Amino acid sequence: MSEYNLQVLLKRRPVGEPVEGDFEIVEGPVPLPGHGQVLVRNRFLSLDPYMRGRMSDAKSYAKPVELGAVMEGATVGEVIASNDPAFAPGDAVMGGQGWQRFCTMDGAKLRKVDVNEVPLSANLGVLGMPGLTAWVGLEDIGEPKPGETVVISAASGAVGQVAGQIARARGARVIGIAGGAAKCAFVKDELGFDDCLDHRGDLEAQLDAACPNGIDVYWENVGGHVQAAVFPRFRDFGRMVMCGMIAQYNIAPGADAAGAPPGPNLGPVVRKRLRIQGFIVSDHGWQRYPQFRAVMLGLIRGGQLTWREDVVTGLAAAPRAFIGLLKGENFGKLVIKVE
Amino acid sequence: MSEYNLQVLLKRRPVGEPVEGDFEIVEGPVPLPGHGQVLVRNRFLSLDPYMRGRMSDAKSYAKPVELGAVMEGATVGEVIASNDPAFAPGDAVMGGQGWQRFCTMDGAKLRKVDVNEVPLSANLGVLGMPGLTAWVGLEDIGEPKPGETVVISAASGAVGQVAGQIARARGARVIGIAGGAAKCAFVKDELGFDDCLDHRGDLEAQLDAACPNGIDVYWENVGGHVQAAVFPRFRDFGRMVMCGMIAQYNIAPGADAAGAPPGPNLGPVVRKRLRIQGFIVSDHGWQRYPQFRAVMLGLIRGGQLTWREDVVTGLAAAPRAFIGLLKGENFGKLVIKVE
Repeated sequence: MSEYNLQVLLKRRPVGEPVEGDFEIVEGPVPLPGHGQVLVRNRFLSLDPYMRGRMSDAKSYAKPVELGAVMEGATVGEVIASNDPAFAPGDAVMGGQGWQRFCTMDGAKLRKVDVNEVPLSANLGVLGMPGLTAWVGLEDIGEPKPGETVVISAASGAVGQVAGQIARARGARVIGIAGGAAKCAFVKDELGFDDCLDHRGDLEAQLDAACPNGIDVYWENVGGHVQAAVFPRFRDFGRMVMCGMIAQYNIAPGADAAGAPPGPNLGPVVRKRLRIQGFIVSDHGWQRYPQFRAVMLGLIRGGQLTWREDVVTGLAAAPRAFIGLLKGENFGKLVIKVE
Repeated sequence: MSEYNLQVLLKRRPVGEPVEGDFEIVEGPVPLPGHGQVLVRNRFLSLDPYMRGRMSDAKSYAKPVELGAVMEGATVGEVIASNDPAFAPGDAVMGGQGWQRFCTMDGAKLRKVDVNEVPLSANLGVLGMPGLTAWVGLEDIGEPKPGETVVISAASGAVGQVAGQIARARGARVIGIAGGAAKCAFVKDELGFDDCLDHRGDLEAQLDAACPNGIDVYWENVGGHVQAAVFPRFRDFGRMVMCGMIAQYNIAPGADAAGAPPGPNLGPVVRKRLRIQGFIVSDHGWQRYPQFRAVMLGLIRGGQLTWREDVVTGLAAAPRAFIGLLKGENFGKLVIKVE
């Protein structure tokens, strides 16, 4: 165990695509827990597309990370020392400890996790924020019904893989969209989607073939040319679950900055009675975490939910891995093994 | 009373803006009611923007009017003869009798109306399809709350004037948008909206002044430059009630035909957790008509709901009046006094 701290700071705000020089990696002493605090050694750090927004000072739903501060992020780790009677050394915990090896946290901000249920890192994916996002978005907006056609963009990613499997468990026919043959094969063969389309090919023709009667639910993770291909193919009463639009996070991190390309003409929203709705899981999602976790564990035990992680080793590799995430270079839920 | 029938037929499908030559006015004998049927003499015909869609054979939520057939439309009239024991000569009725003076209808398709409550023609507006549309859209999608800012496009029109007054009765701050000083003065002074903006002026600047904290609910009747000005000004959790987009009915009657201009980039839907939802009142609205009528009559009695009609005399004037409706030339709910 390295007995000094390692932290990734936001050094400057990226302009367009982030570069490694936007971050700074610093060493320092292991902090001491104050009154009521817990010292945690992070084992895994979650890297997620929303973090691009935190690097920008454009108005958004959450405050940006300050320059010179540790980058925000969800982590799972081990309690090393505790001044909170609810935690003891050796406990596995999840929380938002950020891009760093050690940190001190108020006990109230940590959640104990049972490592006998699933591997520790799964608490950042299928049982973490991405999984909760998938579940909340389908429960509240997508509401897939048996026999309906559900299309999931970024289908091999952290949210997409869970959303598609939940929709399948609810009896829907699920078509993924991913980039490249390897991801498509994984989505179809290992995640069990009914089909998976490669957005690098002629997506419109593939959608026509895979969804001959149109699309009831579209899970939007990406925007761009994928959204343009899906939008005209909604059936009446279709739902578009707006989870993210990663294709433009580097153009318009605030999501409506000048330079964002136009979107679809909204005429079909009236004629087809569509519902297009955005959500942010942190609004109300975590209040429902116990119910979510129980549902997910049930699906896992029943063989209806599996997942893939893309594990990158070492905190120092986090900036480069995050830059790749925005380009779709990861394959599965991206996590950093902190060491 | 003219003792012959007069009918307006759809002669050919308009290309772009309809012209009078797209219609044909024919005379004929007064029809005789068959078994269980009622002979109705129409007194007022409703003209509404949705009729542009019925003239097109582009795929839509309802079948087009066939060439050579009587144009569809809601009417109120008087029972002349009845083979249905539920109706007697002299009864006032509402139904979908179309652009014609006389017609025979199955009694089941007619609804008796009480002319002591409101004038007969009001059953085509505030107590008819447009009023029901306003009520359903706010009940199910807009859900304005006390203190929220609601923006209503086409605010002096059949739907807009009712939607705005319902929102005010629910405690919202209501800003109308209309075309020209006369309509804006009416919306503000007679309908009692908090303000009304002229979309022929600098709408963005007027919106910034009238809605300094942004917009919670937008009632979309028009599309085009009005939608473009409103969209960036939503507050978090804003709702966009998609009732219609009249600005493009002549471009893309099927609402997604080639040639429709692009819409807004949908990034803010995620960041602001917006809900954009379309609806068609005929889906479920009429099942709730009794509740709607009771609510509206309560508002009328309480002095919270008034309205303005634009009455054009003579069925032969209907094509020209309809063409003007698509250009915003009417001032208030457009009805034809059939004579």
